[in-house]
Amino acid sequence: MKLATLKDGSRDGQLAVVSRDLTSAHFATGIATRAQQLLDDWNFLSPQLEDLYTTLNMGKARHAFAFDPRACMAPLPRAYQWADASAYPSHVRRVLHARGAEVPAGLLQVPLMYQGGSDDFLGPCDDAVFADSAWGIDLESELAVITGDVAMGTAPDAALEAVRLLMLVNDWSLRALVPAEVASGFGFLQSKPATAFAPVAVTPDELGPAWRGGRVHLKVSTQVNGERLGEVESGAGMHFHFGQLLAHLARTRNVRAGAIVGSGTVSHDDEAQGVSCLAERRALEMIRDGQATSEWLRFGDVVRIEVAGAEGQSVFGAIEQRVRGAQAEGFGAVQAKAA
Amino acid sequence: MKLATLKDGSRDGQLAVVSRDLTSAHFATGIATRAQQLLDDWNFLSPQLEDLYTTLNMGKARHAFAFDPRACMAPLPRAYQWADASAYPSHVRRVLHARGAEVPAGLLQVPLMYQGGSDDFLGPCDDAVFADSAWGIDLESELAVITGDVAMGTAPDAALEAVRLLMLVNDWSLRALVPAEVASGFGFLQSKPATAFAPVAVTPDELGPAWRGGRVHLKVSTQVNGERLGEVESGAGMHFHFGQLLAHLARTRNVRAGAIVGSGTVSHDDEAQGVSCLAERRALEMIRDGQATSEWLRFGDVVRIEVAGAEGQSVFGAIEQRVRGAQAEGFGAVQAKAA
Repeated sequence: MKLATLKDGSRDGQLAVVSRDLTSAHFATGIATRAQQLLDDWNFLSPQLEDLYTTLNMGKARHAFAFDPRACMAPLPRAYQWADASAYPSHVRRVLHARGAEVPAGLLQVPLMYQGGSDDFLGPCDDAVFADSAWGIDLESELAVITGDVAMGTAPDAALEAVRLLMLVNDWSLRALVPAEVASGFGFLQSKPATAFAPVAVTPDELGPAWRGGRVHLKVSTQVNGERLGEVESGAGMHFHFGQLLAHLARTRNVRAGAIVGSGTVSHDDEAQGVSCLAERRALEMIRDGQATSEWLRFGDVVRIEVAGAEGQSVFGAIEQRVRGAQAEGFGAVQAKAA
Repeated sequence: MKLATLKDGSRDGQLAVVSRDLTSAHFATGIATRAQQLLDDWNFLSPQLEDLYTTLNMGKARHAFAFDPRACMAPLPRAYQWADASAYPSHVRRVLHARGAEVPAGLLQVPLMYQGGSDDFLGPCDDAVFADSAWGIDLESELAVITGDVAMGTAPDAALEAVRLLMLVNDWSLRALVPAEVASGFGFLQSKPATAFAPVAVTPDELGPAWRGGRVHLKVSTQVNGERLGEVESGAGMHFHFGQLLAHLARTRNVRAGAIVGSGTVSHDDEAQGVSCLAERRALEMIRDGQATSEWLRFGDVVRIEVAGAEGQSVFGAIEQRVRGAQAEGFGAVQAKAA
């Protein structure tokens, strides 16, 4: 099943079922109006949405309409939790190596994970607005899960059972703001602005055998201004699977329905596959040439992130965002989204 | 106006207005059923609740009932954001000094702030359940605000205008898990389990002149097993006011209605006032005696946190929680709270 949330001027948008080929959609009205409502009561509501999904895919849904990713908010426009890991050791090793820093001893034993802001997610085609291009604007292509309830102390395999939906993420990062926040020990805050999500969230069964061992085994394609940054296999290099990441998060507290847990930047040891963020490209340049030549993103740049399924079809739809300066956006003005 | 959320078996509970003296309450049914709904549409809904509050205080509300803090969830039972600062330099200085660590150069220039988990808050009288008493269980008495929308880049004074409600917080901390998470640079995660809140959230006008300069000027009283840990003046030692904390959080992203921002452990240079967490008491012992003699909390200990107003009345109601071992609670079982 594929789900999206369409903009309707409210903070939570309208939940819709989207056809497998991403061409048509149907509002979930009568079953659930908001994505969080579905997650709060998954076992009761999801079978009804699955029925609608089947009807929609057969072309028999009564009020289907053309699906437009530009009308999408994030599949879950605001969440009660967004915890993002760094589960690809090749990403961590490259970035630290380039910096001349030591790789932490526990890298393969204990997941790195930070708590992110989840009150103001961006839709797949929303502009990414920043006040200062000197902040080191970077993208990060990641995968994420939305969970059901996970009780404190749940083991990794049991936690994996709580995965409800998979998503594709652009975890915007401001690299120039990272060092001070890491040094403080309090972790990322200003260096992690609003996160963006691909148009549809999908149930794991949509991936068939590409969802196995708690990992997505597909290629994450990342482009900047139409130029390939990477086409990176997302399964092989993911050291901790999503059940392990969830169990880590749930070690000392309950994780509640609708929590989002991210994989961290998708990465693979094979350099020919490219990378999923500019920081890692710059790290490879430094390791190889002694200096980084790639620049951070500039205002006007366009980022595109997509994942192709086994038959080449787009699984989550594409994230396609333009980087914009805050002045041009009327910096300081909140968009009126009041429900 | 004073507001609470009463347990009704759902994830969000039922919003209620509570009388100034905390003796009676009235459901907000017909105006708003959930606290987030109020925050999403504050300007339209809050005047209606204020009217109900006035009627309730006059003893003329039609369906008033006795207010029972034990029936309360957190005033906002789950939130889209919980960002907690460390705005009291005396707390930071003492803890770092005892550890032999250097006080960061920017302590008075840039707020320390971490992103917390906000999907599973505890009510004021809910047990605090932990799997292992060796984790260094500690309380932290803090104040917090719930905000309206704050646009990216908003200045401190303007951000202060977005403060909707004030709350009293117990920011449970697991001290033994802190060092590894601070060293990773990714910040607190497992070391910050579910946070608890006093029964009622109050509008700033409830505090009269005790709310000034973006700070609460009252005494935060903290007890462990009935013994005084501190009675600490909350205004004088708070270096950054809530508008500055909010502006820090909103520097690179929009902050949306219903975000909670905390002050960090309330602290004052005057040692006679005591402290608001055991870590700080242990730090003072180390500085004075060369070793810490106070122990962390044990299963069965009871923590009580309260704030008295100018006339001695309880402003937020009391947080009164028992520390419990996970085994005794049926560790691993999520309470059925599905809506």
